[in-house]
Amino acid sequence: MDEPQAPAAPAPRTHRASGGREAKRAARSARAGVSMPYITRKIGVYEVLDEEGLATIERNADTILAEIGIEYRDDAEALAVWKAAGAEVDGVRVRCPPGMCRSIVQASAPRDFIQHARNPARSVPIGGKHTVFAPSYGSPFVRNLDEGRRYATIEDFRNFVKLAYLAPSLHHSGGTICEPVDLPVNKRHFDMVYSHMKYSDKPFMGSVTHPERAQDSVEMAKILFGDQYVDPVTGKPKTVIINLINANSPMTYDATMLGAAKVYARANQATIITPFILAGAMSPVTVAGTAAQTLAEALSGMAFVQLVAPGAPVVLGSFASSISMQSGAPTFGTPEPALVLFAMAALARRLGVPFRSGGALCGSKIPDAQAAYESANTLLPTCLGGVNFVLHTAGWLEGGLSMGYEKFVMDVDQAGMMHTLLAGVDLSDNGQAMDAIREVGPGKHFLGCAHTQANFETAFYRSPIADNNSVEQWEAEGSQDLAQRANASWKKQLASYEAPPLDPAIDEALQDYMNRRKATFADSKY
Amino acid sequence: MDEPQAPAAPAPRTHRASGGREAKRAARSARAGVSMPYITRKIGVYEVLDEEGLATIERNADTILAEIGIEYRDDAEALAVWKAAGAEVDGVRVRCPPGMCRSIVQASAPRDFIQHARNPARSVPIGGKHTVFAPSYGSPFVRNLDEGRRYATIEDFRNFVKLAYLAPSLHHSGGTICEPVDLPVNKRHFDMVYSHMKYSDKPFMGSVTHPERAQDSVEMAKILFGDQYVDPVTGKPKTVIINLINANSPMTYDATMLGAAKVYARANQATIITPFILAGAMSPVTVAGTAAQTLAEALSGMAFVQLVAPGAPVVLGSFASSISMQSGAPTFGTPEPALVLFAMAALARRLGVPFRSGGALCGSKIPDAQAAYESANTLLPTCLGGVNFVLHTAGWLEGGLSMGYEKFVMDVDQAGMMHTLLAGVDLSDNGQAMDAIREVGPGKHFLGCAHTQANFETAFYRSPIADNNSVEQWEAEGSQDLAQRANASWKKQLASYEAPPLDPAIDEALQDYMNRRKATFADSKY
Repeated sequence: MDEPQAPAAPAPRTHRASGGREAKRAARSARAGVSMPYITRKIGVYEVLDEEGLATIERNADTILAEIGIEYRDDAEALAVWKAAGAEVDGVRVRCPPGMCRSIVQASAPRDFIQHARNPARSVPIGGKHTVFAPSYGSPFVRNLDEGRRYATIEDFRNFVKLAYLAPSLHHSGGTICEPVDLPVNKRHFDMVYSHMKYSDKPFMGSVTHPERAQDSVEMAKILFGDQYVDPVTGKPKTVIINLINANSPMTYDATMLGAAKVYARANQATIITPFILAGAMSPVTVAGTAAQTLAEALSGMAFVQLVAPGAPVVLGSFASSISMQSGAPTFGTPEPALVLFAMAALARRLGVPFRSGGALCGSKIPDAQAAYESANTLLPTCLGGVNFVLHTAGWLEGGLSMGYEKFVMDVDQAGMMHTLLAGVDLSDNGQAMDAIREVGPGKHFLGCAHTQANFETAFYRSPIADNNSVEQWEAEGSQDLAQRANASWKKQLASYEAPPLDPAIDEALQDYMNRRKATFADSKY
Repeated sequence: MDEPQAPAAPAPRTHRASGGREAKRAARSARAGVSMPYITRKIGVYEVLDEEGLATIERNADTILAEIGIEYRDDAEALAVWKAAGAEVDGVRVRCPPGMCRSIVQASAPRDFIQHARNPARSVPIGGKHTVFAPSYGSPFVRNLDEGRRYATIEDFRNFVKLAYLAPSLHHSGGTICEPVDLPVNKRHFDMVYSHMKYSDKPFMGSVTHPERAQDSVEMAKILFGDQYVDPVTGKPKTVIINLINANSPMTYDATMLGAAKVYARANQATIITPFILAGAMSPVTVAGTAAQTLAEALSGMAFVQLVAPGAPVVLGSFASSISMQSGAPTFGTPEPALVLFAMAALARRLGVPFRSGGALCGSKIPDAQAAYESANTLLPTCLGGVNFVLHTAGWLEGGLSMGYEKFVMDVDQAGMMHTLLAGVDLSDNGQAMDAIREVGPGKHFLGCAHTQANFETAFYRSPIADNNSVEQWEAEGSQDLAQRANASWKKQLASYEAPPLDPAIDEALQDYMNRRKATFADSKY
């Protein structure tokens, strides 16, 4: 894979910039902290299954695809595509002989690809040793310490786009960060996509709730990227949008998701084919059963995309948590989903496609210790397991029903730590630090030694919100918990936000497109 | 290594038991939850360094031992031991040629060993694929939601022994769980050791603050174990106490710790030789530098123990966190200590000795989200890295200055989850669950299927304190955070506590020993 144009270190953003504006942007960039456009891991991946275990899961997935099959509902074209490819189509049930879906995927799906951002320094590679962090996705509610829990609005949506733009550890602007329920259901995608384009220059996600909304997302991307939209070498559109296509587990795809997937694939835009599974309800209560079913559903969906548009970028997605066997409520951050994640990451690598999973998931309603334990118990396996695209990195509360302002800031800090973890151990002479040990010797301290002085700025990840002061100082400062400090942080960040520059002609064209399209049909609640 | 007498499943505790008492005990056991005496991991360990990286650290440790050396202060016997072994002794500085310490350790230190508990079903194997969870150690303060932070007392100490006894996921009673500052410094070890013996039947730790106090710990263990103290096969004492011997990093051992180590080693009791390092102060600011220094210090200490008492059980300990480069305050749960832990665990395996590190460390003063993120970011690497003996599994707050009642309950829950994680993926036919997938099929749900029904009781780790209910139900129940639910839990547990049976004659002999010894010297603050 070609690397994006940006080096791993923060690159100066020079396109369409004159001297004065550039100086202002540099100052903004400094305020936003040192931002890495993406992570390239330097430590290995953790796996829980050996070759035999992985082969067992793959065999079971093949059995599911061949014997049980996957339903493609309300989409005659999809069934025709499968029939033409040689699958056994029985009503809406599609059965594929063992190995067929794998062969289709491996024949044309890219192992990795670049999602281009309007700011080329923000483009991200998806796959391989790379990890890309995106905010949470899909909450109808927001929560903060001041207002508690309430329905989300487009203002909240814009706030989170801005906070994600400012977050040095988030590489991506995400998609439906929260549902702007103050806007009509059938028109809110315009404002969401526009907000990503206007208030951030990081890569973003498109609408998947209707094929027409997917097409709107593509059209707006064409306007945004202009003559940069088509790759001059391949003559094909560059991949500039990534899109979340969920299976209706168990073993079902519906017309909405299939329709959106077809639009994006035919425009060479990326799809994340994700069985969304709460084990015990949508899959068996076991890790191995959930993994086999997830693999079967994802294989089928990815193969379908490749049949529709060979070579279109696809990502194997896995969203697998559990339900409480007592109450039926979804649970997060428990050990079983971590095991599923480790297994699925390995299976995606064997298949040869990028992998999406994990994040900072939790069931807690508030940004308390439960939220943090559960989130860390999801994010750390996400990073050690080798997830390439991490949706839900920041903000997730209440099983995804709420987007938390304070939780967002807390999770961004955790994502920052993961950059340091994934950078691994520096074994250079400076990293080995033998000079420091020689200089200091027994019984002394390292605080003032030359090596410590030389590495002062870069030594150790620095959390902007953790409090490690003495208890006396902490009490003098108001005995705040982490959520309270995070509350002050997001307010300060929003107050200091400045939008990245956007060509006024492009901005006008985007607004013009939205307004014209909005005028062509009535508001709707569906 | 022989396994302890107890099987992995909870064993009936039948020694000295008649029918009625046994029934009562069974009921108690049921209330205390299903307790595993220890963990045998079924998933692999995670490593961050390759062969070359590990060899580099080992080479640097050898260089430290040969060129810089380790100081053995105020202990002429220790220097004589080293001289006799062929080390270069220059004042209090001991230098060993490359490989010498490693050879000494590998010649006689056991790869693993059993620490016997007075209840044989609670004996624990230390080393290999086993993980043993012990509570936190050493806090002068306690904190709970009702009282805030205050000095710890012997009553707190007893409370935590009881809570650890009741905790199904803790395998060990620990040592100085908190400092009973209401008792004289030079006599409180009696009450601490006695509390472990009286209020728990799990294995425990001895006193290390003076060689005489170590000897008292051994003498009380002899009384407790009676004719079980000496192994009839080897004629040597069984290992029934494990003890924390900290190096005075950098590169220094003091007479107190050396004195205690000698007492325990000569009695065939286990020592955990632990460089206690806050990187940036007691070691270089880098992971590789901290690992090399830790390995050098630990190698020297373990070799010393083997020279004093060949074959005495030793554990390689690593306590490595960082300091804030801004304030100098210790920090916890950051990525660098996780990298040190992964590296040190691999180095201990290469050396062939058990490894102690990690826990649920945090810098937060209170059981908030900071405490939880940091603790999870320590405990998960602890478990994935392959730590054998985990001190500080539960209760740690404020960099170890405070023992938290609520934090203890929260961490115990996390330790429970680690049991499930380390058990890995069940690949049996039941685990593969193909029958369930066949039975349910596309578009249906798994809630009522035969496989779900059959696995209802054991499916998924169940947290006793997490709340996954709807926000409406959670609000109706008082909108409690995790700490508030944990507060109710520890109070309920203490109210229901019943001590494990202890032979009254042994109890009397222990009290008699303590009282006699206490009468022989005056109270002191040192």
